[in-house]
Amino acid sequence: MIDRLPTINQLLKNLQQVPYLASKNLYRVASFFLSADDAKIEHFCHVLLRAKKNVIKCQRCAFWQERDQDCIFCSDPKRNSGLVCVVESWQDLFVIDRAGGFSGVYHVLGGAICPLEGIGPEDLTINMLIKRVEGNTIQEIIFALNQTPEGEATTAYIAKKLRVFNIKLSSLARGIPVGSTLEYMDRLTISKAISERRPF
Amino acid sequence: MIDRLPTINQLLKNLQQVPYLASKNLYRVASFFLSADDAKIEHFCHVLLRAKKNVIKCQRCAFWQERDQDCIFCSDPKRNSGLVCVVESWQDLFVIDRAGGFSGVYHVLGGAICPLEGIGPEDLTINMLIKRVEGNTIQEIIFALNQTPEGEATTAYIAKKLRVFNIKLSSLARGIPVGSTLEYMDRLTISKAISERRPF
Repeated sequence: MIDRLPTINQLLKNLQQVPYLASKNLYRVASFFLSADDAKIEHFCHVLLRAKKNVIKCQRCAFWQERDQDCIFCSDPKRNSGLVCVVESWQDLFVIDRAGGFSGVYHVLGGAICPLEGIGPEDLTINMLIKRVEGNTIQEIIFALNQTPEGEATTAYIAKKLRVFNIKLSSLARGIPVGSTLEYMDRLTISKAISERRPF
Repeated sequence: MIDRLPTINQLLKNLQQVPYLASKNLYRVASFFLSADDAKIEHFCHVLLRAKKNVIKCQRCAFWQERDQDCIFCSDPKRNSGLVCVVESWQDLFVIDRAGGFSGVYHVLGGAICPLEGIGPEDLTINMLIKRVEGNTIQEIIFALNQTPEGEATTAYIAKKLRVFNIKLSSLARGIPVGSTLEYMDRLTISKAISERRPF
C-alpha cells in the first residue's frame, strides 16, 4: 500500500538510515517533518548542510572543529599538550571535559576494536595517535576508554603499540563510584577497589 | 565548551527538536550526519524538502496524499465509501490496512483528546468527520481508536456528536487476542470477553 505513495515511501526509507531511530518511531518522526512549517524544514536542512560543510575533524586529535577556526583543545595554550587523554567517542570527551580536573588535550579514537562488528584497529585513529607520540613531546597518555571488554582490549592493544616509546601510560582509576553504597556494588568492582587501594 | 563550536551546537539544537530522538543518542545521530558523504546528506535534505512540498493531507480523510494524485483510499472505486473506519494516527491506518478484511475508507483524527497534553477536540479532525457525515452517504462508522482512557474518551465524545445522524456506530471487538493464553490475560479483558461473548 505504501508503494502507492512514492514520496512518503522515500521519506521513510531515508529516515530509516538514521541510526537510533527505532522503527516504531519512524512514522512519528515522518509526521513531525510532514507537519512542520516549510520554513522550519528548510532551516533544518540548511543547518545540516552547513554543519556538513563547516565541521571537520582535527588532524591531530580527531575531535570535531569548525573549518574556519583551530581545534579548541589542541590550539589552547593553557592546556598541557604533553598530557593526552584517549577516549572512544566525542560524547566521552564531553563527559570528561564537563567533570573538570583535566587540563591536558584529547585523542578521539572513534570507537573501540570490536571484531564482531567488523571494527578493526585500522578503523580507529590509532595510527594518528602513534604518529602524535612519535613526532611530539608527549609525556603521558591516560586511557579513558569504557570499562567494557572492547574498551579494555583496545586499551591493551594501543598500550602494546606504545610500549616502545618512552612515555608514561595510565588509565582511569577503577573503584567505588562517589556516593554509592558498598552493598549494591558488584564483586569485580569491590575486588578492584581493594587491590588498587590507595594510602589514606 | 560546546558554545565554542557554534555549528555543531546549532546542529545539536536542531536535532533536539526531532521527537523520539533520545538525548543520549543525539551525539550519535550528529556523528552519523557529520561523518556521512556530502552527497548522502544532500540527498537526505532533498528528500525531506520534496516530501514537505509534495505530500499534503486529503481534504476528506486527513490521510497523507501525493499532491499530484488523489487520495489512494478515498478515490478507490473498489472501496465502500459508506463505511468509515476512524483511527487516531496514520500508523494505525497502516496496521488496519495490513491486517486486511476492511474494504471501507478511513478517517485519521490526528490523535486523541488529552487535556493534560493540551489536545482538545478542535485539534483533531472531528469537525471534518462531522461534515463528512452531514454531506455524504455514510452508513456506518467503525471506531478503531486505541483502548486507552484517551482513546475511549475520544470515541465517546465523537459518538455523542454523531448520535443526531441516522448512521450505525460501532467499535472494534474487545476480547482475547488470537493465539494468547487465558492465564496471562488481565481481568478487564477477560470480563469484557465474557460480557461481549458471541454465539458459537
